[in-house]
Amino acid sequence: MAGAGTGKDTGRDLFDAAVKAMDNAHAPYSGFPVGAALRTSNGTIHAGGNVENAAYPEGWCAETTAIAHMVAAGERTIVEVAVVAQKMARITPCGGCRQRLKEFGSPETRIHLCDETGVVETVTLGDLLPMAFDMEER
Amino acid sequence: MAGAGTGKDTGRDLFDAAVKAMDNAHAPYSGFPVGAALRTSNGTIHAGGNVENAAYPEGWCAETTAIAHMVAAGERTIVEVAVVAQKMARITPCGGCRQRLKEFGSPETRIHLCDETGVVETVTLGDLLPMAFDMEER
Amino acid sequence: MAGAGTGKDTGRDLFDAAVKAMDNAHAPYSGFPVGAALRTSNGTIHAGGNVENAAYPEGWCAETTAIAHMVAAGERTIVEVAVVAQKMARITPCGGCRQRLKEFGSPETRIHLCDETGVVETVTLGDLLPMAFDMEER
Amino acid sequence: MAGAGTGKDTGRDLFDAAVKAMDNAHAPYSGFPVGAALRTSNGTIHAGGNVENAAYPEGWCAETTAIAHMVAAGERTIVEVAVVAQKMARITPCGGCRQRLKEFGSPETRIHLCDETGVVETVTLGDLLPMAFDMEER
Repeated sequence: MAGAGTGKDTGRDLFDAAVKAMDNAHAPYSGFPVGAALRTSNGTIHAGGNVENAAYPEGWCAETTAIAHMVAAGERTIVEVAVVAQKMARITPCGGCRQRLKEFGSPETRIHLCDETGVVETVTLGDLLPMAFDMEER
Repeated sequence: MAGAGTGKDTGRDLFDAAVKAMDNAHAPYSGFPVGAALRTSNGTIHAGGNVENAAYPEGWCAETTAIAHMVAAGERTIVEVAVVAQKMARITPCGGCRQRLKEFGSPETRIHLCDETGVVETVTLGDLLPMAFDMEER
Repeated sequence: MAGAGTGKDTGRDLFDAAVKAMDNAHAPYSGFPVGAALRTSNGTIHAGGNVENAAYPEGWCAETTAIAHMVAAGERTIVEVAVVAQKMARITPCGGCRQRLKEFGSPETRIHLCDETGVVETVTLGDLLPMAFDMEER
Repeated sequence: MAGAGTGKDTGRDLFDAAVKAMDNAHAPYSGFPVGAALRTSNGTIHAGGNVENAAYPEGWCAETTAIAHMVAAGERTIVEVAVVAQKMARITPCGGCRQRLKEFGSPETRIHLCDETGVVETVTLGDLLPMAFDMEER
């Protein structure tokens, strides 16, 4: 879905940030480090890795770490995301992360799905979380 | 997507079970009771409401309660789900619940989205969680 | 802490229920099945095992399954709990489960910590979660 | 528990960081902003606020944000924490956060419980999460 002439390079800086963040993942239980990076409406990049816990449900995904950085920096709008994992041909955000991205994104938010060499495919949050749950519908 | 002659009545028994389960939701923090019911490959129905916690992230959704019943009963395959909420025209499962349903469902698993009078729309888990995350892709 | 003459047998029926529930745990990622059983103020026993997810943070612990059953049955007060795990000399509830138990328990709620042969030690929720977080303090 | 002559001022810089972080909390659902700050074994401070989600279980606590920062910075050892909330006389970490702190802390990790004016009481992680769950016991 990248524009003409941009090809796979779209999101390259986010991919690089995600790969770097993956180095600091804490994934001793799954052995499955993941990295995520996002760009805000201000153009800032925030990144992070997954942080697992001995009690599995108490850990969190790479996207959570990246969003945590963004929110702590006072920013609230995600325009673009890259996700990468060691050992996977192409990772997609889990359903929980799609919901967490939705809190600060829009259906147009771009999601770059990566393997260890770069962006493999670019979709939108609307593609990944159609008919999203939102309290505002009440 | 219901077959000829069934119309909105498809999933009526699941809707009824979800509404009944909603009565036992524990939703004092959001004031937003939700009910879910699922049918397994054995034809059994399991249902439940959301269970909130003073520490919000430690609570869980209605779908979790229903799946918990199913797993505890030794069943592992979800073929059909209904979700209903008080105060919403039509609720969809949150991203986290889509991921939890995926653990035991398939892209063909039917999801009945309901309002307080019955099924409003029927979609599939594949519709709601395309390109689902799965460890098996490793 | 058991009364005279009861010794380790206190909570034996809960231990038995927890062991049975452990058989239906869904723990393919950790290989670490856990079972929990609780007794309500009505004397009813509810039990369940852990339910893991490919996306680790989206799974839940055995105590959650047992509480889910209780809440769905319209009950709200936990007086006694037993927790058991395969492969552990003595399991204690994780911090998240202590918080989830607290939503429906009291500092006096008894927690039986078990190994695979029976109750090893009995403590209270107040022992395990002192100075508990509660929204009511606001 | 502070040493002679330090009194309530112990942890003052962490309290200040937690208060500042609270300003960037995302708490539209509870209306209950919380801030947390931690000091690592390197002497670095990492802070953050809670980040709620329309789907309550998909949000996270202030401590999670602070730990996310620490892990992303390549640090792994928490020696001291401060937690503060608007609208509460004295907040304690929820059970889930005690478990998340335990992943990177020790029973000696100091936890400063604060109100909006400063540290009210200092306890340890061992005080708040006795008999902690850990996979290493397997």
